[in-house]
Amino acid sequence: MKEKIKVKIEPLKEEFFNKAWARLDNLIKPKKSLGRLEEVAARLVAIYENLFPEIKKKIILVFAGDHGIVEEGVSAFSKEVTPQMVYNFLRGTAGINVLAKHVGADVWVIDVGVDQDFGTLERLIHKKVIKGTKNFTKEPAMTREEAIRCIEVGMEVAKEAIEKGYNLIGIGDMGIGNTTPSSAITAVITGKPVEEVTGRGTGINDKLYQNKIEVIKKGIKLHKPNPEDAIDVLSKVGGAEIGACAGVVLACAERRIPVVIDGFITSAGALIAYKINPLVKEYMIASHQSEEIGHRAILEYIGIKPLLNLNLRLGEGTGAALAMNIIEAGLKIYKEMLTFEEAEVSTSVI
Amino acid sequence: MKEKIKVKIEPLKEEFFNKAWARLDNLIKPKKSLGRLEEVAARLVAIYENLFPEIKKKIILVFAGDHGIVEEGVSAFSKEVTPQMVYNFLRGTAGINVLAKHVGADVWVIDVGVDQDFGTLERLIHKKVIKGTKNFTKEPAMTREEAIRCIEVGMEVAKEAIEKGYNLIGIGDMGIGNTTPSSAITAVITGKPVEEVTGRGTGINDKLYQNKIEVIKKGIKLHKPNPEDAIDVLSKVGGAEIGACAGVVLACAERRIPVVIDGFITSAGALIAYKINPLVKEYMIASHQSEEIGHRAILEYIGIKPLLNLNLRLGEGTGAALAMNIIEAGLKIYKEMLTFEEAEVSTSVI
Repeated sequence: MKEKIKVKIEPLKEEFFNKAWARLDNLIKPKKSLGRLEEVAARLVAIYENLFPEIKKKIILVFAGDHGIVEEGVSAFSKEVTPQMVYNFLRGTAGINVLAKHVGADVWVIDVGVDQDFGTLERLIHKKVIKGTKNFTKEPAMTREEAIRCIEVGMEVAKEAIEKGYNLIGIGDMGIGNTTPSSAITAVITGKPVEEVTGRGTGINDKLYQNKIEVIKKGIKLHKPNPEDAIDVLSKVGGAEIGACAGVVLACAERRIPVVIDGFITSAGALIAYKINPLVKEYMIASHQSEEIGHRAILEYIGIKPLLNLNLRLGEGTGAALAMNIIEAGLKIYKEMLTFEEAEVSTSVI
Repeated sequence: MKEKIKVKIEPLKEEFFNKAWARLDNLIKPKKSLGRLEEVAARLVAIYENLFPEIKKKIILVFAGDHGIVEEGVSAFSKEVTPQMVYNFLRGTAGINVLAKHVGADVWVIDVGVDQDFGTLERLIHKKVIKGTKNFTKEPAMTREEAIRCIEVGMEVAKEAIEKGYNLIGIGDMGIGNTTPSSAITAVITGKPVEEVTGRGTGINDKLYQNKIEVIKKGIKLHKPNPEDAIDVLSKVGGAEIGACAGVVLACAERRIPVVIDGFITSAGALIAYKINPLVKEYMIASHQSEEIGHRAILEYIGIKPLLNLNLRLGEGTGAALAMNIIEAGLKIYKEMLTFEEAEVSTSVI
């Protein structure tokens, strides 16, 4: 079956990196002494193609979906927690609400695959593609058409946000059980053994952890997802919110908007996007290194380095929100510090 | 000679940690899933002895001093850059100004040892103890009385800040050449070889780096500072701004105010404070892991773990400012997220 996701992504231009570094290297500090902040600033200049870019409005897009695989006992929480948390996101009382508010970012909550009828619930963005995935130890998580539709939902929501003026976009996830499909996707695409990319998610015990590994192996053995066909992987062992995250990454890269990846689940989405078009890498900023061991495998596979390592493993976009403050700090350094000449400071003597 | 620095520091009470963790473990998230943010929140509760503490006003105290050792060719910058940067701090155009403003912190600039007559320069806090240290390859950096006076300056300034309502205090440094005394202090107190705690500071080449190591070894051999007498170490191979940073740490611990350590130089000050009274450790928050290799040795010796690792090596308090945003995020998580009961979310099923 032919690939249906079409995106046109341009590589970043060396010229903008060079101009950004010319200024950064001339600010009143030893060269490169603000480390990662300077790297982020240079990347923003290259993404926006603007020598004095402005971060106008920030948003975290939180996609929610359920997972049939939960019936195999892979999570410490029951499935009803997914919609319960959606209600909390809308009330503004969850971790992502607190952290997004802290950094001045808005939050949109999108139902892409929750197994609950939300009716016409206000403020929720209704984009349900499926009512939860199927149990992938028995049948594919979803059809190929559904997987494509999930990616399209992410692209649509991202484009809407961009049209509303958001120009720094973070992604978050909610879905009880979703570290299991994320580990499955990671194992298939990176080729690493399931054991090396599977963690304890919400905090399961040894017995459930062993079971989780077996469940993932069983699903992969049954469906044999094709690692070179990201949509095949997403449909067979993935999840709706993971697909939507992939869509946001693709749409942001197409529209030249930096996209901030959160932890393991959103990174599994980023990995799907990367397999669809590797150029997305240049538009991604990895916010943090999650405690989930599979996360490291994804970041290494794509070749991006996280900004923070705060032992987070909540998801929801919490790490992406925190990193937005660091990203803005980098841009302010670039724009607001004086150069040696402007400040009348003597330059290096060697 | 008898120790002259007198401080009364109480250990933190387990009771407050326990109460903080009881709430943290009941917020709508898997237990401990916000990692370091939760640890910081619990520490703040224990330091303030308040179950719902408030960070009212934040400040970065930047201490400046010169170093006679610069005449041995240990820095890429010439000595006149120290006062030039002081002027920039006061104009608000340096890295620390940009980052402090970004996180909503004020900045005070204190001359404790700059080799420049600032006259009655406004907004500079005039606390000059020495006009630069002496070249410690020839004579002690300063007298024991001067070293004590530098620490007292830090204590005085911290107390003034606390009296003005600042209850989160970060420390920063400015002083061309000051990685050299910081490495000397680190080598003496931790007992590690000079080579293992000496880095390239502002970015010196191989030849200057080898010379820097020899210079530090020569100073230590000449003066034989007593590692168990922190003031002896500070006076023989230290610096004025390093002593002042030690004073801030001591005063904050005495007054139950969390103190945010910046990079290598301020950590050398924190190390001096720790040797004077190890209880200061409980009031310290290590903001970041500097690129300077000696920094790791200090943090390991004291036994504190940095929040950030952004490859910073600027100093000025820039890392401390960035970490303040993370610290506030942790406290907000603790105060603003709902518990499972409040939010009507099902708790873990295992």
